[in-house]
Amino acid sequence: MPAPIDFYFDFASPYGYIASEKIDTIAAKYGRTVAWRAMLLGPAFKMAGTMPVLGMPLKGEYFKIDFERSARYHGVPFKLPSPFPVPAVIAARAFLSVSDRDPDKAKELGHAIYRAYFADGRNIAEESVVLDCAESVGLERSELGKAANDIDIKNRLRALVDAAIARGVFGSPFFFIDGEPFWGSDRLPQIEKWLATGGF
Amino acid sequence: MPAPIDFYFDFASPYGYIASEKIDTIAAKYGRTVAWRAMLLGPAFKMAGTMPVLGMPLKGEYFKIDFERSARYHGVPFKLPSPFPVPAVIAARAFLSVSDRDPDKAKELGHAIYRAYFADGRNIAEESVVLDCAESVGLERSELGKAANDIDIKNRLRALVDAAIARGVFGSPFFFIDGEPFWGSDRLPQIEKWLATGGF
Repeated sequence: MPAPIDFYFDFASPYGYIASEKIDTIAAKYGRTVAWRAMLLGPAFKMAGTMPVLGMPLKGEYFKIDFERSARYHGVPFKLPSPFPVPAVIAARAFLSVSDRDPDKAKELGHAIYRAYFADGRNIAEESVVLDCAESVGLERSELGKAANDIDIKNRLRALVDAAIARGVFGSPFFFIDGEPFWGSDRLPQIEKWLATGGF
Repeated sequence: MPAPIDFYFDFASPYGYIASEKIDTIAAKYGRTVAWRAMLLGPAFKMAGTMPVLGMPLKGEYFKIDFERSARYHGVPFKLPSPFPVPAVIAARAFLSVSDRDPDKAKELGHAIYRAYFADGRNIAEESVVLDCAESVGLERSELGKAANDIDIKNRLRALVDAAIARGVFGSPFFFIDGEPFWGSDRLPQIEKWLATGGF
């Protein structure tokens, strides 16, 4: 059994959302599984010297177009939410607390959170919205609310983000396949070729 | 006859090189032509607040891998040249001087310059290398040397770069198809779908 594909993402990342709708299907075609790892881009951006793209001259205007076009290209519903971006820390902690004990249920929660933000325009920085998402996939609302504020989960998320950066993650989505790094939903075709050929 | 696809590129851009090997074939499939526009990214980077990627923490290491893998993915010979990047101003001026009177010959020169740098590792910042490229496609060496230092050409290149930035160009390759902007060789699949469907 080959190792799972590592899929790092930030819940406020449009290209992370697009990738989240595609990666498990691509992986399954080649007998691979995917380990979802919610992270926070803020510290990675600080480290890499980058910033949220919509605030940048020239790039900001382009990316508003590219987010929507890329989503249409992949057949994924998308509407740029407002506010954008938002800190996805509650969402990431909730995800992590489920991911520990039930990775498949965590993916359901991950899809619900991503769709709430990028398809339905709900503000996932708010705990109540994250808990609505949890409830929609059959998770216990009060239990998850507690976990999202748990000091252990906080610390483990921080450690996970540090470990991701130490591994070279600087954006979302970011993948490792048997050690090979791929950044961006636009690398999905290369990922598919990599899986099909065992590396090229 | 639909308008040509605008293809902006910097001769020191690896993804510009990859796109230069692909875009005319893709365009021709859909009855379209391509207008090549050599530019200089330095001023656009300054404007957009970005910098050459290999100097950035985290990103630098990734892009060394991604340049080569993306070239392999597209079947384009590539070896990261040293020095990299280089100022491509002589190359851009030489290209512009030919492009005015013979756009097809200019594309031949463009291919020769790009391949000299990214396949053969020759330093295209040096005038003698650019003139070797010119000679290899049947252009008059001394005539081109003169043109590359001509004050009119210098001024027109500067104006072309300013106009590109005013239009929103901040990277290489950068395309406009009937007004729609596309950045990056990784947008070639979207470009192809756009051409095939008339926009999506």
